[in-house]
Amino acid sequence: MPASANIPAIALPFVGERAKKTLDLVEEFVEKDCIPADPLFEEQIGQGEQRWNAHPPVIEELKAKARKLGLWNMFLPKNHFSQGAGFSNLEYGLMAEYLGKSRVASEATNNAAPDTGNMEVLAKYGNDAQKKQWLTPLLEGQIRSAFLMTEPDVASSDATNIELSIRREGNEYVLNGQKWWSSGAGDPRCKIYIVMGKTDSSNSDPYRQQSVVLVPAGLPGITIHRMLSVYGFDDAPHGHGHISFNNVRVPVSNLVLGEGRGFEIIQGRLGPGRIHHAMRTIGAAERAIEWLIARINDDRKKTFGKPLSSHGVILEWLAKSRIEIDAARLIVLNAAIKIDQGDARSALKEIAQAKVLVPSTALTIIDRAVQAYGAAGVCQDTPLANMWAGIRTLRIADGPDEVHLQQLAKRENKLRKDAVTTKLHWQRDQANKLLTANGFQPKAKM
Amino acid sequence: MPASANIPAIALPFVGERAKKTLDLVEEFVEKDCIPADPLFEEQIGQGEQRWNAHPPVIEELKAKARKLGLWNMFLPKNHFSQGAGFSNLEYGLMAEYLGKSRVASEATNNAAPDTGNMEVLAKYGNDAQKKQWLTPLLEGQIRSAFLMTEPDVASSDATNIELSIRREGNEYVLNGQKWWSSGAGDPRCKIYIVMGKTDSSNSDPYRQQSVVLVPAGLPGITIHRMLSVYGFDDAPHGHGHISFNNVRVPVSNLVLGEGRGFEIIQGRLGPGRIHHAMRTIGAAERAIEWLIARINDDRKKTFGKPLSSHGVILEWLAKSRIEIDAARLIVLNAAIKIDQGDARSALKEIAQAKVLVPSTALTIIDRAVQAYGAAGVCQDTPLANMWAGIRTLRIADGPDEVHLQQLAKRENKLRKDAVTTKLHWQRDQANKLLTANGFQPKAKM
Amino acid sequence: MPASANIPAIALPFVGERAKKTLDLVEEFVEKDCIPADPLFEEQIGQGEQRWNAHPPVIEELKAKARKLGLWNMFLPKNHFSQGAGFSNLEYGLMAEYLGKSRVASEATNNAAPDTGNMEVLAKYGNDAQKKQWLTPLLEGQIRSAFLMTEPDVASSDATNIELSIRREGNEYVLNGQKWWSSGAGDPRCKIYIVMGKTDSSNSDPYRQQSVVLVPAGLPGITIHRMLSVYGFDDAPHGHGHISFNNVRVPVSNLVLGEGRGFEIIQGRLGPGRIHHAMRTIGAAERAIEWLIARINDDRKKTFGKPLSSHGVILEWLAKSRIEIDAARLIVLNAAIKIDQGDARSALKEIAQAKVLVPSTALTIIDRAVQAYGAAGVCQDTPLANMWAGIRTLRIADGPDEVHLQQLAKRENKLRKDAVTTKLHWQRDQANKLLTANGFQPKAKM
Amino acid sequence: MPASANIPAIALPFVGERAKKTLDLVEEFVEKDCIPADPLFEEQIGQGEQRWNAHPPVIEELKAKARKLGLWNMFLPKNHFSQGAGFSNLEYGLMAEYLGKSRVASEATNNAAPDTGNMEVLAKYGNDAQKKQWLTPLLEGQIRSAFLMTEPDVASSDATNIELSIRREGNEYVLNGQKWWSSGAGDPRCKIYIVMGKTDSSNSDPYRQQSVVLVPAGLPGITIHRMLSVYGFDDAPHGHGHISFNNVRVPVSNLVLGEGRGFEIIQGRLGPGRIHHAMRTIGAAERAIEWLIARINDDRKKTFGKPLSSHGVILEWLAKSRIEIDAARLIVLNAAIKIDQGDARSALKEIAQAKVLVPSTALTIIDRAVQAYGAAGVCQDTPLANMWAGIRTLRIADGPDEVHLQQLAKRENKLRKDAVTTKLHWQRDQANKLLTANGFQPKAKM
Repeated sequence: MPASANIPAIALPFVGERAKKTLDLVEEFVEKDCIPADPLFEEQIGQGEQRWNAHPPVIEELKAKARKLGLWNMFLPKNHFSQGAGFSNLEYGLMAEYLGKSRVASEATNNAAPDTGNMEVLAKYGNDAQKKQWLTPLLEGQIRSAFLMTEPDVASSDATNIELSIRREGNEYVLNGQKWWSSGAGDPRCKIYIVMGKTDSSNSDPYRQQSVVLVPAGLPGITIHRMLSVYGFDDAPHGHGHISFNNVRVPVSNLVLGEGRGFEIIQGRLGPGRIHHAMRTIGAAERAIEWLIARINDDRKKTFGKPLSSHGVILEWLAKSRIEIDAARLIVLNAAIKIDQGDARSALKEIAQAKVLVPSTALTIIDRAVQAYGAAGVCQDTPLANMWAGIRTLRIADGPDEVHLQQLAKRENKLRKDAVTTKLHWQRDQANKLLTANGFQPKAKM
Repeated sequence: MPASANIPAIALPFVGERAKKTLDLVEEFVEKDCIPADPLFEEQIGQGEQRWNAHPPVIEELKAKARKLGLWNMFLPKNHFSQGAGFSNLEYGLMAEYLGKSRVASEATNNAAPDTGNMEVLAKYGNDAQKKQWLTPLLEGQIRSAFLMTEPDVASSDATNIELSIRREGNEYVLNGQKWWSSGAGDPRCKIYIVMGKTDSSNSDPYRQQSVVLVPAGLPGITIHRMLSVYGFDDAPHGHGHISFNNVRVPVSNLVLGEGRGFEIIQGRLGPGRIHHAMRTIGAAERAIEWLIARINDDRKKTFGKPLSSHGVILEWLAKSRIEIDAARLIVLNAAIKIDQGDARSALKEIAQAKVLVPSTALTIIDRAVQAYGAAGVCQDTPLANMWAGIRTLRIADGPDEVHLQQLAKRENKLRKDAVTTKLHWQRDQANKLLTANGFQPKAKM
Repeated sequence: MPASANIPAIALPFVGERAKKTLDLVEEFVEKDCIPADPLFEEQIGQGEQRWNAHPPVIEELKAKARKLGLWNMFLPKNHFSQGAGFSNLEYGLMAEYLGKSRVASEATNNAAPDTGNMEVLAKYGNDAQKKQWLTPLLEGQIRSAFLMTEPDVASSDATNIELSIRREGNEYVLNGQKWWSSGAGDPRCKIYIVMGKTDSSNSDPYRQQSVVLVPAGLPGITIHRMLSVYGFDDAPHGHGHISFNNVRVPVSNLVLGEGRGFEIIQGRLGPGRIHHAMRTIGAAERAIEWLIARINDDRKKTFGKPLSSHGVILEWLAKSRIEIDAARLIVLNAAIKIDQGDARSALKEIAQAKVLVPSTALTIIDRAVQAYGAAGVCQDTPLANMWAGIRTLRIADGPDEVHLQQLAKRENKLRKDAVTTKLHWQRDQANKLLTANGFQPKAKM
Repeated sequence: MPASANIPAIALPFVGERAKKTLDLVEEFVEKDCIPADPLFEEQIGQGEQRWNAHPPVIEELKAKARKLGLWNMFLPKNHFSQGAGFSNLEYGLMAEYLGKSRVASEATNNAAPDTGNMEVLAKYGNDAQKKQWLTPLLEGQIRSAFLMTEPDVASSDATNIELSIRREGNEYVLNGQKWWSSGAGDPRCKIYIVMGKTDSSNSDPYRQQSVVLVPAGLPGITIHRMLSVYGFDDAPHGHGHISFNNVRVPVSNLVLGEGRGFEIIQGRLGPGRIHHAMRTIGAAERAIEWLIARINDDRKKTFGKPLSSHGVILEWLAKSRIEIDAARLIVLNAAIKIDQGDARSALKEIAQAKVLVPSTALTIIDRAVQAYGAAGVCQDTPLANMWAGIRTLRIADGPDEVHLQQLAKRENKLRKDAVTTKLHWQRDQANKLLTANGFQPKAKM
């Protein structure tokens, strides 16, 4: 069955015919072109230092093919951007699931983070000159980009803690400080950093101290100290950089939107990106389920005379994985629809739900597949360990689960506490009237 | 916000305007009439033996009001039955959520199990005489009914184990054996038992041995030995009977559909009923969340100077409960849509997912509320303990979770194993071609 | 194998020969006399109102037999009390496990809560007259007692919230207020309430406002409003009372220890009692495992042709239950040894660990057994549902799990944070010295 | 407090004075010498290919110091071996916990796997010549070793599946086949492989087909194809090799114990080694708790104005971690005592419990610490990700958890089912006699 035949019944009214056709094309491209190319991509990166200078040729071949197929920039939703392929968030979400099954597919179709979020920032907040210089080549897949927010010495999950200084001097901004987890900064094709820092650290409103500036990679004063690993994986050539800024100077025209508007920019950037991540993660989990199925039907891997598919415990893993991932998918699709019908701000609750639910669900599922594979599951012979490590970071990135859960709860509690309390007290009073009228003892007050 | 404003965005295309209005009426009726009447209903049942002779007057008052409001028999889906209120399974599912918040609401609107499933059986498989005698008064809410399948001495989760004998003698069937968990059999208004048993225990096809016959309550030879409790609750007057049949005789015209067609009947009965149970359970979980919110904002219940709503652990309970129940609801709604678009048979997977996911999710949520209430949570001062016990049985009723999980897994494994294995092998071969063509070592065969 | 052969190897050095023999006697008495008497005890309680006037004769027969066997008052540890049977907390803990398997065994051997804690209070803090009047008949098993602390209108998990007023007037104390969860107050043999309240609500030290007084049951002004249920169980005749005090007067000689010393008394009362509860709970879990084993080997309960004991999922339940309960037992035994070697105060951490770990472990195990039994598991046909409900209250009683966890964490954090932080910083500095000395870059400061 | 003051009270009777002193020395050596040397060890391994030729000098310095301190070969239990430091399994277990906190400590004290198990094999089953040639230099820490059992193309968790052929030709054995997860084979100092294979694949007893032979590393026909990663870690220089044997020839004198005795040897090897792994894992979890404590008290890492140590959710992580790891430790210590009092065979149940419980417990704890650290937790800036990955393999190595759980359950079920069933039936009969004698209805038969 093609991908379009697997769209959940409840989501079908939101998917146009063109999207269904494109979805099937995406699936075919991922399964037939991208997944088989993943190992070659890994080999072309090479070993040791060269990993950070690598530009695997296979990625350009795939990009050429994807463009020819019309699979390009699907991430830019039609309601908010004119530059994309013209799909809704819901429609692209369905495609992103398949992209998430392969290491190279997102980049091959120019839907790869962090470029996607960065293109959104430039398209939404950039001026014409900024768009021409950076957005156009990003949309064309000619360069890559990084978003520099997190810092090593503060708790960045509270973004008001960010410390990198952006000081104006004449017609220039001077940057000092350090950033880490600058994902994508390792790639030699990464040409532009979108940098969040403080232009006005004494502003009494902690949400007006930050600004965002565009910093071309390679400027004097920029040092990539080291690349950070994720459970031993370096994610080269993309990578996660630890970068310091020592009197790095950019023209004031590199400021995005205006001084003090950094928070506005990062909030606009996060919503749809979280949906993308979530749907790719669901794709990874689905791929883990496929590997699980292959394993438990592998005749070479019988234990005590029985194939793994006859073991009740492992069958239960399969069934629970199916239920959990199907439930998680519906949560994400519902959030995508909410964004499509309004914007990310009106879908805060739904996005946060997807942000929290999907990675932990996928980690559980992938870990079950690892366990079914045994030793093969933890090493390079399956995609499982690598997928697990990548998704593990999603419980932390853009704020740890715990912060989102607290915010979700506080919001629900604030919105509902008065109405709920009033209703329950009224119901108790009403019940007591009924009891008394019928000759029974009333209940205690709530 | 009225209930219709809380329908998940993804489900909205499936809900008609009349259903939205009815949904809002249901909500108002449940919150303003039924929940306040729950304690009176409990008191009117009384104590000791009289509990099994009780017919609380309040239920008839509520039925009269519900009928006047047009809230009657909403459970019968318009696609398959002409006798109902004309809603789809999806639409009724949304209403059932609210019915599930009150002990009396389902009966007050004539949507209470097991009558609902029994009416479906009679409407679908009964002949005209059977319909006239039993379906009409059930649709009118004049009598109640029980479905007798489970037996104490066998593992009934495998229905082929059922042993009650239905032997033909001339123009009569003679029943011998015992049944338990005959829910509703305690109610003095329960007039008809729909009984599953074996007419042909030597049939080589174990799925053709069973038949269903209609047995009026109170016939000679029927003994209700005792009522079974659920975690100490007797669920009077409804109750769960342990009943023996000793040469009970009914005319052969009381056979439903035909000899050997018992399996066909019970399978047709289960699908939508599981959706009803699931949605009512979601309503119970939502009510538990309301009680949780009321508790954590109760100024009398501060500990160590802080209200419970400022404790991070409890806030996390609230947030997780919200995510989990919202995900579970989407699973059920999607299953309801699949039934609406085909029938229960075409939605087997989706129904099973809902059947397994919802009760365990709701139990977790209710248990969190119990814990937040402390001693008040386990006793009669909140609806929590009673809701928990009732929902706990849903992990067992109609087959334990574990059986459904095994079936889900076996079905997915069977359907997908060949295609998945073939695809993964092909991808490995293709990857190896690419690797070899580019001068790299191929990977090991999968 | 007798119980003494099942003592964990690691605990054996702490168990004397007499204790081993007594342990085997306890096991035999529980398995052969008490468990078979449980159903009779339940029947002798009867139905309806008479449940609260019941004194099942079988309990006195068992008491007579237990006393003859020397199985009496084993709970009073030899290090701290002369009135008991002369065992350590560890030794009695092993016995309490067996007592926990039967509903009647603790009372039959005069080791039943809340009498045990009350006897400890009287033995430790009572004066001679108080001991003579109340401790002696309690030790003889002639009367029963209740401990009245929790109140319905405050968050009692923070005991400073307690509000019942104990006002001195001349030679009398006058009590006003209400208590609930007064366990044991339903029994007609309950003759004495040990009541915690406030004698000095304006004391600036919130831990000096409370006092404890002895209040004979039945005094004018005392009303038992109602009995609270646990899930649907009333726990008659023992029960959990909701009691109000309206100008109830007792002589000042009924004060225990001194005004303002209430906190001192309740803290001395809790330690060993929590160990007793924990070990009884482990016994209940072990009994659930026995019932699980019986079920999965019941030939009548085959599903799809296989006994439950061949289903991997259920075998995994059995194995995990075994591991979890064995781990929990060692935690309790270690805590008992810490009390034996010092006192409850020196074993705060270990007692809290047992308090939190054991009930949740046992609930999981019992719930697995319920699920394996299906419908029989939730009703009166197994002891499982009743055991589950009783143990569920232990996650709340004497403070909810969450409060104990916060206290455990705060204590560990406070005790260790300076030393741990200093050590880790020193190790980082030392590592950097080594790195630098060998020509490598140092790591960032922690 | 020194380590000896932290021994659980319940374990103290099993720890001699010399062991306590040595334990304190171990702690000091680990905390002051080994942990600070871990980063230097990592740097001395280097990058790229050189990682597999590395012999970090720091390890020899630490070995010299350890030997001087008398911290050498503590793993060989005094009851069974004369060559060790003279401690019991329990005593060494306590020490192994501390060794597990550092990457280098086990090797520095010559207690590193797989050498420990290999030395046990040689000491127990080797002949004098084999001991002289291989055991002596291993005991001296002059060479290292590998144990080659697992194979890539079969399900090795069922060791009868092993396929590597050991064919006798005259005075030689000829080996053909492949092995993987040959841990330690990457180290240039690894001089000897202990290889399990089949000498008699047609033997009707599948447990007599295997033999163990000693194969010097580097023989003609041996190829180390590649090193396997664990998540992204290569564990160099130790490593996990994938090795093929192509007509590799060894003299028949290299056979250990006798043909067909392979199973006997591997079973003798596993018991204490599992205890070692478990205790080191507990040490790793304790180190994760230390890092967690350091993080939540780090003033630079406040979020929303509060240190992490004031967040209830994180405090609950700390408390639960404490309880869980303390419970797991007692399970391991009890197993060690059982081995000390008998042998590994008599402690099968207890060892399996430790084998299953400890890694999953530690993984949960370490993952909590990762989450508290956020981005720093997944990368090379803390030891957490590396510890997690290493311990994740323990849920697979020496048989996956699921196999051990099935075996545990089957053993308990087999041992107990008759006695338990008989007892429960007897109790039901006895109860029915009592009920009947007192005029009540008997219960149904079980």
